[in-house]
Amino acid sequence: MPPALLRLLQRETGASGRPSRAPVAADAVELTDSALPGDVRSRLALWCGVREDREARLAHAGGKSYDDLIRRRTGEASAAPDAVLLPTSADAVRAVLEICSEADVAVVPFGGGTSVVGGVEPLRGTFSAVVALDLSGMDQLLDVDEDSLTATFQPGVLTPRAEQLLSERGLTLGHLPQSYEQASLGGYAATRSAGQASTGHGRIDELVVALRCQTPSGELVLGRGPASAAGPDLRQLIIGSEGVFGVITEVTVRVRRLPAERRYQGYVLPDFAAGQRVLRRLAQEEALPDVARLSDDGETRVTLTMAGGGRAKAAALGTYLRLRRVAGGCLLVLGWEGMPSSVAFRRKAAHRALTTERGVSLGRSAGEAWRRGRFSGPYLRDDLLDHGILVETLETATDWHRLPQLHEAVRDALVDTLRQDGRAPLVGCHISHVYPTGASLYFTVLTGARPGAEIPQWDAAKRAATDAIMATGGTLTHHHAVGSVHAPWLAEEIGDLGVDVLRAVKSRLDPAGILNPGKLLP
Amino acid sequence: MPPALLRLLQRETGASGRPSRAPVAADAVELTDSALPGDVRSRLALWCGVREDREARLAHAGGKSYDDLIRRRTGEASAAPDAVLLPTSADAVRAVLEICSEADVAVVPFGGGTSVVGGVEPLRGTFSAVVALDLSGMDQLLDVDEDSLTATFQPGVLTPRAEQLLSERGLTLGHLPQSYEQASLGGYAATRSAGQASTGHGRIDELVVALRCQTPSGELVLGRGPASAAGPDLRQLIIGSEGVFGVITEVTVRVRRLPAERRYQGYVLPDFAAGQRVLRRLAQEEALPDVARLSDDGETRVTLTMAGGGRAKAAALGTYLRLRRVAGGCLLVLGWEGMPSSVAFRRKAAHRALTTERGVSLGRSAGEAWRRGRFSGPYLRDDLLDHGILVETLETATDWHRLPQLHEAVRDALVDTLRQDGRAPLVGCHISHVYPTGASLYFTVLTGARPGAEIPQWDAAKRAATDAIMATGGTLTHHHAVGSVHAPWLAEEIGDLGVDVLRAVKSRLDPAGILNPGKLLP
Repeated sequence: MPPALLRLLQRETGASGRPSRAPVAADAVELTDSALPGDVRSRLALWCGVREDREARLAHAGGKSYDDLIRRRTGEASAAPDAVLLPTSADAVRAVLEICSEADVAVVPFGGGTSVVGGVEPLRGTFSAVVALDLSGMDQLLDVDEDSLTATFQPGVLTPRAEQLLSERGLTLGHLPQSYEQASLGGYAATRSAGQASTGHGRIDELVVALRCQTPSGELVLGRGPASAAGPDLRQLIIGSEGVFGVITEVTVRVRRLPAERRYQGYVLPDFAAGQRVLRRLAQEEALPDVARLSDDGETRVTLTMAGGGRAKAAALGTYLRLRRVAGGCLLVLGWEGMPSSVAFRRKAAHRALTTERGVSLGRSAGEAWRRGRFSGPYLRDDLLDHGILVETLETATDWHRLPQLHEAVRDALVDTLRQDGRAPLVGCHISHVYPTGASLYFTVLTGARPGAEIPQWDAAKRAATDAIMATGGTLTHHHAVGSVHAPWLAEEIGDLGVDVLRAVKSRLDPAGILNPGKLLP
Repeated sequence: MPPALLRLLQRETGASGRPSRAPVAADAVELTDSALPGDVRSRLALWCGVREDREARLAHAGGKSYDDLIRRRTGEASAAPDAVLLPTSADAVRAVLEICSEADVAVVPFGGGTSVVGGVEPLRGTFSAVVALDLSGMDQLLDVDEDSLTATFQPGVLTPRAEQLLSERGLTLGHLPQSYEQASLGGYAATRSAGQASTGHGRIDELVVALRCQTPSGELVLGRGPASAAGPDLRQLIIGSEGVFGVITEVTVRVRRLPAERRYQGYVLPDFAAGQRVLRRLAQEEALPDVARLSDDGETRVTLTMAGGGRAKAAALGTYLRLRRVAGGCLLVLGWEGMPSSVAFRRKAAHRALTTERGVSLGRSAGEAWRRGRFSGPYLRDDLLDHGILVETLETATDWHRLPQLHEAVRDALVDTLRQDGRAPLVGCHISHVYPTGASLYFTVLTGARPGAEIPQWDAAKRAATDAIMATGGTLTHHHAVGSVHAPWLAEEIGDLGVDVLRAVKSRLDPAGILNPGKLLP
């Protein structure tokens, strides 16, 4: 926890600096007995490992949202699954779905467990018992096609292991969400994920070329060839289905060769609008970098505060910016990876656009510093909680035209709802996914946690922000999925009839409705 | 009709050079009376134009496949719709769907009518009457967002008009299938189309950012923002739905600025495999041209024969190729459009790859000649029919690894089935859509039509080729859609369960089943 950040938070938001409540020890958490009937347990055990111990159940009681972290601290484990199943084959997954359909047991597919939208909450729905279907035992690389540059994985493989297996053949997937270290490939596909390099490498829905999915009604095998006009693309119905239609048991992804060159660089722009013009131009000229991350003034201020925590280089940076008269501007990190010729072409395009908008380079060190620290954000959260800080993020996307209005509407909603004793929260935002027609907005909120009412405090802000997103034409979520948290708004995104279409598909594939109840569908 | 081509066909395939049967005059075509009940007609007429005249009904009796052309020549019009409806608004479309659902009248959405897979065949199914829903009256440009570079059109606008409207604002869609002049934007979306520049510009499923679709159960409004993780992508369920779920009444597409530079160039490569390596490398280095068209030796031979029809330049080309010892090689056309810097970067990459594979440039004239003639192919078909030539195309796609095997399997199936008196048909193939993981294959067949049995002759070849495609792992169709022709194979593409999913969606959106019966779903 950078001391400068804590001081800023205490000064501006009135945060206390002390935990809003002390964590409950793991062995003090009250857990009801497993409600899984013994005969069902026996039938399941013929196909896969079944754990009903305290440790396994608690480890599958939720995801990684602020609310999840608070619930874990308060020892609230009412939602722990009755058992954790550990299949190692598609056949076992199919058998589990069959047995649970017959026995009316809800099944929550569980990949890396990094959902921040309640996607792995073990909700019972109308069922008497609920099990977590943990796919971590299915983590093999099944096939690599070095001509077509595709790789087929089992769903439970975590990203670092997938990258390790690929790099042994000179390949990379390059899908790098902040949850990278703990997230699984099947989870990415199920939640329609995007990563930090998706601006260049493509979202997971663009990278998955084929998949297998086990449903209570049988297996779906989808994806023949690089593109097809053979009717609707059913892959795109399974990608983002969040385990409510079936369990993805195999995923074939596009991979690429390890980059020959890699270059990250930092810049400062006069304001957020100028940065948007740079990114829009690069997208529409088809000269995008692989990574593009533009912070608004709020996020820039927090970032500079954190960097300014006593390090000489950071202080020099501040001086440099003041000299160039861009203090108070917006930070931009660009990263290029690939063939030297491609990196050179795209860097030139970026520098033309940056010059037009009076951007100032901070050099490679600023870019590399971001790259080195890019997965560390989540680890800071426990520290922040220990200091009584509410920390949470939310994100959306829209077209370029509506982006400024959406940015303002969401920021205002967050500031208004989280204002305490006249003091505003710190709200920062960045653009991290850029398309020719628009971009994402990713908000981070920091303020003093309200002791004993942490969850209602955040939920009110989340509701207000989401209402603002929907009213301003943004999408409900650009890369965090729907889960249980966003489900109440899904009909605003796709209409009541769109929801009915999803329900019709669910009825066909999961007639007993056992799969992930309470997620995705309102 | 180039005389050299006719001579080649007569010599090699034994084609007679005379029509296999004389066309029937339009007024000699026998047409049954319209079966549309009078009261239904009156109700429909409150909402839109209703034509039951001979001319309108015959004009909507089919698409543009070889079988369609033959049927038109033989005067077989048993499949003409009972009436043609001409709505001019989404409300009218919705009213038509309501009235026809109640009255049990089948509705065939009709855009440009260029389907080559029976997509607009007015099949009655189990209904007493069938109407064509002609969308040509809905051809307006509704909105342009010059920041986000998107444009919203009504579905019936034909491509040349759409491009005209866009070019007035310095914009272009750049979706250029060979049917370009007669095809509609709504039709592209409904059939998951790809155009000649889709290698650079993207397929229609990548260009459609939002759409409205009227179904008998209500309206679907899909697409918020440039990308979303809010569940399955229902746009991709409507794109390619071929009018069996609903009628697309609005489509918002990504557009781009008119290219500052445009350059087309021809090359010859030693063989098809070398050309594939060039295209694969450019795709995997992300340096693809916008247009890439690689002919196999069969197609190269026909192309050179056609070009060789007495023109001095063509003769010089032959001499040049012989001197460079690449005669018998494979033609490649590459086209780049866009910013000069982007064109330069990608041309350099192409020249590196071409040098490695011993490619020889034919200069810009060969590329420009292809560009000028690129929409003329279909017009040659009537001429060929007049000379008793069977001419038809089919296409597929697969990953790079399986491409050579698929190429051979389909070619062999066509040659074997169409062999007559020991003489083989001319079968040529080209790759025209290139992806990092694979490519399309587009076959053209030329041989003597079997008099009086033209349709069974082709259908046997088509069946054999499609069986070969499915057995070799290709996709049923890369850009021609499913229609009635491919429907029997759909379950091989997406499985019985995949077909059931589509049926479940259809039941929800079109409970009476009136929309385009006999298409897409087997």
